[in-house]
Amino acid sequence: MVLEVAFFHIKEGMENDFEEAFEQASKLFNKVDGYLGHTIHACIETKGKYMVQVKWETLDSHMKGFVESPIFHEWNDQVGHYFKPDIYMEHFTVVHERGDD
Amino acid sequence: MVLEVAFFHIKEGMENDFEEAFEQASKLFNKVDGYLGHTIHACIETKGKYMVQVKWETLDSHMKGFVESPIFHEWNDQVGHYFKPDIYMEHFTVVHERGDD
Repeated sequence: MVLEVAFFHIKEGMENDFEEAFEQASKLFNKVDGYLGHTIHACIETKGKYMVQVKWETLDSHMKGFVESPIFHEWNDQVGHYFKPDIYMEHFTVVHERGDD
Repeated sequence: MVLEVAFFHIKEGMENDFEEAFEQASKLFNKVDGYLGHTIHACIETKGKYMVQVKWETLDSHMKGFVESPIFHEWNDQVGHYFKPDIYMEHFTVVHERGDD
């Protein structure tokens, strides 16, 4: 499993609209082979900052199966206009975990 | 539930030792009221970069129950020397999630 982690900021005043649009748009993930689930979190300290994490079977599930597919354009049409520039995104693998997930 | 998210870099060549030390040190979390679980991930793109996420019942579980307690000093004694400066840490709340966790 590969975890995509992205941080970004949403334009001022558009946070609620973005959250609804993201929930709708995230249904598109189901069309992508290797999609295993996702979460979106809002930052407590920094208003308008969000963290998205998407679990993929492999790096290619994300970078080829999603980013290089027409599904990405469809996704971007639904939520792209809410984002400020300067999005952070990297991928991670689990080293160790404990708890309720 | 409040999610603590931290990113940091480990000194070159100390990654394996850090991972073992972190797993041992993380047993200390069990002594803290409001600790609900944690994960540690290694970055695929940036060697030596890690992401730790800790689930806490409240912000105070982390910032008072852990950071302001003697347990934090014990934890820091075990793993603090592996870290480079410039640690990022903020807290998040779930907006929406779907998948296997």
